[in-house]
Amino acid sequence: MSSQSQIPVVVNGACGKMGREVVKVVAQAEDMTLVGAIDKDPASLGQDIGDVLGCGLLEVPVTNDLEATLVMAQGQGLSVMVDFTHPDTVYESVRAAIAYGVRPVVGTTGLSADQIQELAEFAEKASIGCLIIPNFSIGMVLLQQATLQAAQYFDHVEIIELHHNQKADAPSGTAIQTAQMLSELHKPFNPPEVDETEKLPGARGSTLADGVHIHSVRLPGLIAHQEVIFGAPGQLYTLRHDTSDRSSFMPGVLLAIRRILPLKSLIYGLDKIL
Amino acid sequence: MSSQSQIPVVVNGACGKMGREVVKVVAQAEDMTLVGAIDKDPASLGQDIGDVLGCGLLEVPVTNDLEATLVMAQGQGLSVMVDFTHPDTVYESVRAAIAYGVRPVVGTTGLSADQIQELAEFAEKASIGCLIIPNFSIGMVLLQQATLQAAQYFDHVEIIELHHNQKADAPSGTAIQTAQMLSELHKPFNPPEVDETEKLPGARGSTLADGVHIHSVRLPGLIAHQEVIFGAPGQLYTLRHDTSDRSSFMPGVLLAIRRILPLKSLIYGLDKIL
Amino acid sequence: MSSQSQIPVVVNGACGKMGREVVKVVAQAEDMTLVGAIDKDPASLGQDIGDVLGCGLLEVPVTNDLEATLVMAQGQGLSVMVDFTHPDTVYESVRAAIAYGVRPVVGTTGLSADQIQELAEFAEKASIGCLIIPNFSIGMVLLQQATLQAAQYFDHVEIIELHHNQKADAPSGTAIQTAQMLSELHKPFNPPEVDETEKLPGARGSTLADGVHIHSVRLPGLIAHQEVIFGAPGQLYTLRHDTSDRSSFMPGVLLAIRRILPLKSLIYGLDKIL
Amino acid sequence: MSSQSQIPVVVNGACGKMGREVVKVVAQAEDMTLVGAIDKDPASLGQDIGDVLGCGLLEVPVTNDLEATLVMAQGQGLSVMVDFTHPDTVYESVRAAIAYGVRPVVGTTGLSADQIQELAEFAEKASIGCLIIPNFSIGMVLLQQATLQAAQYFDHVEIIELHHNQKADAPSGTAIQTAQMLSELHKPFNPPEVDETEKLPGARGSTLADGVHIHSVRLPGLIAHQEVIFGAPGQLYTLRHDTSDRSSFMPGVLLAIRRILPLKSLIYGLDKIL
Repeated sequence: MSSQSQIPVVVNGACGKMGREVVKVVAQAEDMTLVGAIDKDPASLGQDIGDVLGCGLLEVPVTNDLEATLVMAQGQGLSVMVDFTHPDTVYESVRAAIAYGVRPVVGTTGLSADQIQELAEFAEKASIGCLIIPNFSIGMVLLQQATLQAAQYFDHVEIIELHHNQKADAPSGTAIQTAQMLSELHKPFNPPEVDETEKLPGARGSTLADGVHIHSVRLPGLIAHQEVIFGAPGQLYTLRHDTSDRSSFMPGVLLAIRRILPLKSLIYGLDKIL
Repeated sequence: MSSQSQIPVVVNGACGKMGREVVKVVAQAEDMTLVGAIDKDPASLGQDIGDVLGCGLLEVPVTNDLEATLVMAQGQGLSVMVDFTHPDTVYESVRAAIAYGVRPVVGTTGLSADQIQELAEFAEKASIGCLIIPNFSIGMVLLQQATLQAAQYFDHVEIIELHHNQKADAPSGTAIQTAQMLSELHKPFNPPEVDETEKLPGARGSTLADGVHIHSVRLPGLIAHQEVIFGAPGQLYTLRHDTSDRSSFMPGVLLAIRRILPLKSLIYGLDKIL
Repeated sequence: MSSQSQIPVVVNGACGKMGREVVKVVAQAEDMTLVGAIDKDPASLGQDIGDVLGCGLLEVPVTNDLEATLVMAQGQGLSVMVDFTHPDTVYESVRAAIAYGVRPVVGTTGLSADQIQELAEFAEKASIGCLIIPNFSIGMVLLQQATLQAAQYFDHVEIIELHHNQKADAPSGTAIQTAQMLSELHKPFNPPEVDETEKLPGARGSTLADGVHIHSVRLPGLIAHQEVIFGAPGQLYTLRHDTSDRSSFMPGVLLAIRRILPLKSLIYGLDKIL
Repeated sequence: MSSQSQIPVVVNGACGKMGREVVKVVAQAEDMTLVGAIDKDPASLGQDIGDVLGCGLLEVPVTNDLEATLVMAQGQGLSVMVDFTHPDTVYESVRAAIAYGVRPVVGTTGLSADQIQELAEFAEKASIGCLIIPNFSIGMVLLQQATLQAAQYFDHVEIIELHHNQKADAPSGTAIQTAQMLSELHKPFNPPEVDETEKLPGARGSTLADGVHIHSVRLPGLIAHQEVIFGAPGQLYTLRHDTSDRSSFMPGVLLAIRRILPLKSLIYGLDKIL
């Protein structure tokens, strides 16, 4: 494959949990070249990122100089920066990437609505793509899209989400988001057929305004799972997503890197580019 | 098969939903003979019970004379009366059966603890078996036994029960019973690893004293389902029972009819004869 | 509701298993009026179809005169004939309905490709809608649509279908159809990562040309279930449909009755009108 | 806890995948003391095993001197050697442990029936416990025990096992073992109700002699899962085990270490000590 067809990719946060995975899949992707690995970890500074990850020499040293790396990447053509860093610094990094003409694919959470609005205006002015992706799981986006489609034909639906017992919050953010997407259909889900009595409080789970129940199971041995169950007389339609490893997010990262090139503005959410 | 080895069976409540199923399976069982069909339904009185059920002539007319039927059954050897009638009359019927020497297999609910105690004493005195079986589902008893066995090795467990949305109570009686069986092990289940926060109240379901969570799902299309999920680091062990039809209770009824013959006293619960 | 907004509906095969369900839901639908009940069953002829079904008087006698019923229905406005009859007669019935200006919604199976082609031409000439629907399950169509959507992003997929043990054929027609829909994407599914060895023949199930495995489970207690499982590193995405009762097909029948009115030609498959 | 109540434990194969996990849980167990870490890995020799594993100093250096370690362990009281090494050397190691009076808990596979017989005689003579455990998963043993219990009451059963697509063999060893346990009941499972036709070969899975079907699903994203489904009219009873991590085997290892102390002979299989 000629170098013209290669997408130069910088990974910001290259030594973090997600960053490491991104480095590996970018290095293996036939249409991408890893050109920069940025991280603040002093122990890795100057070392080859491939050595740090134990996956063989990649000839890209770890650096903490964001600007120099962006300048270098921009010089290699239509380039992309994948950002898995920290809520405190992500705004400045993304703004810098746009300023230097490197398209940001942002997985770091914690940007405020105001910050996203400002980045959108900045990207618009620069006429450069910017992707902010709170959840890179293609499978979960497919589940949510299929959920919305089914919700047109089913009036009854409940959500069960199951996570390991070290997760403190219930329900999970994704389950709440799924229920909110259903709420936005402004359809009265689960019209009651009988007067329900909870003999033990909480048995019927939690509910959002429009009647969608969410049940949260927490057990060791579980990882991250979500089930949406639609019911109608004589039938059930169930959508389930199971995540067992953060490698599951990598196809979404690669897709975002490929889809961002022709974009001219900020887009929020993986569903918009699927 | 010679008639000596046949068990004479009377069905009390023969025209009810459960009674009809019992009549059919008793009539087909090679080791049983249907000798009596008792019901108060005036429309069926005097008709052949096989005609009433639309399953071909059985040469047993529907009668409302309990005593005469018991006398006749007793005359045919070690006989059994299956009772699926009504809470108001079940005590008297069972007492009569014991008095006339016909062994009662009782599926009717509603007997008080006092009444059961009195029947136990009466059966003891008469030295005759009596089975009171609140749930004839062999599958559910197996699930509960396997649950107790697993609970010796797992410290974390949750219950999900799923029923049609015309069920008013939550959790189901069987789910509560299963949780109580776990509670009786006096083991602190589900010791928390983090401080849990319910962002929406009820998300984590209901709990009994010893920490077993029960989640109740209600949807049209569901029938009657229960899942017990055990979790430990790196593994899950799940037991699930699905009921789709009351025919599922018939193997338990046939088992009870066969197991009652050698008994000399009252026994409560299908688990005791499995 | 004024009679103008009511859709006059004839049910052909009104005393059959599916026909009975259709009669009941049409009679209850606020925007439909049952105007004809056709059946060849001599025992029901001339009786009120509501009496035959035991659901209360409907003031529609069972008749075996198809033509007279079609003429009558056509006189009442834009009318529809739902056909659940027999492969031997369905072609003639549908042709007659089109000829008399009554829109056919056809659930009867057994029409040949040639016959469907001829009916399509006939409907086109008459400028009248005709719906041929081999599977009225909206849930299953949703599952198949979501399957095709997911197949764009996942390379690995297997199908498990589970049916009662009185089903003679394996795999089920719907599972084969689902696999064929995947085959038509001309994507090499399930590229092998290792040399597979079947220690017991058949372990890996059946396969269509493009590598989609289908596994068929047959057990009493099962009714009709299908599961499509997509896998990728670190994640699974599972779509499952459970049917427990033929009432599950009725929303699809009602939808077809409503959607056929504006049509001017033959359409095949529920997915086309969803 | 006083040192008398501590069980001295040697891990043979301490730097292997399973050995590492064993070292960690033994070090954390309140009633055990890690006294020896044997491995042939030259890179680790002489280093503290805690440092090798990155879990903090354990003050036990890695050694390749089996005999010296056994002598030392035996000197500390009723001691145990856990062996996760290699089929080529396991026989000699276990024989040595017995000879030196250290109880072997053997997870290494590959011992022949003859070798196991010889070890049994040797342990008997030495009057010392020896546990050979092909599968340390307590959850899977519980599933198999519950399967045998259910098989007394259900005549229909199928097995679905699901593994990642890098597993070359199908069905899995555990699924075959489960089916064999059912076969040993000499019960004709799954008596056919209809003449089955496989429209696609392999659809109905593989079968052992007594009619138990096994279906093997292989997908990335799966780890190791087994489902046993029992069916009867109107009901299903399903047992499922999911393994996501080898940490799931550690409770079985700890149990074996505790249960071996009072034993005087060789025992095969975790089920025997549960």
